[in-house]
Amino acid sequence: MKRIANIIAISSGKGGVGKSLVASTLALTLAEKGYTVGLFDLDFTSPSTHLILGIKDVQPREDNGLVPPNVHGLKYMSIVYYTGEHVLPLRGADVSNVLIELLSVTKWGKLDFLIIDMPPGIGDATLDLLRLVKNVRILIVTTPSRLAFETVRKLATLLKELKIQIVGIVENMKMIPNESLKQQTLKLHLAFLGEIPYDPKIEEAIGNANKLLETAFAKKLRQVITRIKA
Amino acid sequence: MKRIANIIAISSGKGGVGKSLVASTLALTLAEKGYTVGLFDLDFTSPSTHLILGIKDVQPREDNGLVPPNVHGLKYMSIVYYTGEHVLPLRGADVSNVLIELLSVTKWGKLDFLIIDMPPGIGDATLDLLRLVKNVRILIVTTPSRLAFETVRKLATLLKELKIQIVGIVENMKMIPNESLKQQTLKLHLAFLGEIPYDPKIEEAIGNANKLLETAFAKKLRQVITRIKA
Repeated sequence: MKRIANIIAISSGKGGVGKSLVASTLALTLAEKGYTVGLFDLDFTSPSTHLILGIKDVQPREDNGLVPPNVHGLKYMSIVYYTGEHVLPLRGADVSNVLIELLSVTKWGKLDFLIIDMPPGIGDATLDLLRLVKNVRILIVTTPSRLAFETVRKLATLLKELKIQIVGIVENMKMIPNESLKQQTLKLHLAFLGEIPYDPKIEEAIGNANKLLETAFAKKLRQVITRIKA
Repeated sequence: MKRIANIIAISSGKGGVGKSLVASTLALTLAEKGYTVGLFDLDFTSPSTHLILGIKDVQPREDNGLVPPNVHGLKYMSIVYYTGEHVLPLRGADVSNVLIELLSVTKWGKLDFLIIDMPPGIGDATLDLLRLVKNVRILIVTTPSRLAFETVRKLATLLKELKIQIVGIVENMKMIPNESLKQQTLKLHLAFLGEIPYDPKIEEAIGNANKLLETAFAKKLRQVITRIKA
């Protein structure tokens, strides 16, 4: 992974806040700008970037490792290529083993950005990844809900203890205008990267990368990107 | 747990669908009807029923085991009593060990209903619980989102393979009227227990059990209950 200039892991305190959607769309919009981008779905709890981007019938190619296929201008790799549509979940140490194997066998080549879709919360997989991948920076996605932000607080505290760099926080699915979450973010001494209004059109765009790029959601994320680079 | 007439575990394919809110409110509404009810928060990924019900300054009592405190007419027990506000998460086997210990030391006494708030998805904790607790029935919460339902499909398939009884599916945070999810539920040969419209008032009711019982959300859940009993 030494040839990757920026590794950004998209994380969240809990599920259902739009983490995978942010990861997928962020990768697309970075590629749209001309960067060489990889998208790596490591959310073994519910891998969904392949559904979001409508990816099927492509596979990584074996060549002294796994070469990710090019999809929608991205190099794409997902844990589903490993687990398939198996119903029985990976247990305990298997999760770590698969994660470590995927990290070591995937041949990304030279990248400007690698976007990683992380499992929600702080589990073994998250801790393994932080231990194994150097120079990873974390972007945290949350909703305005108090319950979601409580989990963000825990996640941010842990990341700081581990001395992991946090890019900042994106507030997703905003419905009622207020600055409450922004203020709480600043109190945690974290960057507030912006808010994304709830976008009812998103559901229709699931499975269609082009449609996704036309949503208000994507438009807002393009603004977030300018803050990440800075 | 032999003295518990009904054990209902509230589960979901992914996080952020309102599982903990359904678990908490369901327990409250059953108690309101005069049943003896326990609420057991085993969602170690982000325990939140204590935040939802505004529970603080009460602790289980030690008496040859742990006797859950009475809160809002419920017997209440949560994994936070074990993990506290520790930032560092439990790893691998520790999760199983804590879960098994909590299951064995908690003295519920005689109950009509025990409502368990499960971790989202299918992880080690879910599998352990299904193995250890006999006669548990699963109520699955989802949102109308296609991504959420994909995870429900997996969860339901696994539960059927394990011969675990599924009470049915509740569709939460409904915004656009349609029968799409109901039809898909019936195709899986599962009971559709009802839909709950998105309720913007919920956020204000977080932390206040009485307010929670007055929401449109609680009203809808009372209808769901009648279907569970049948």
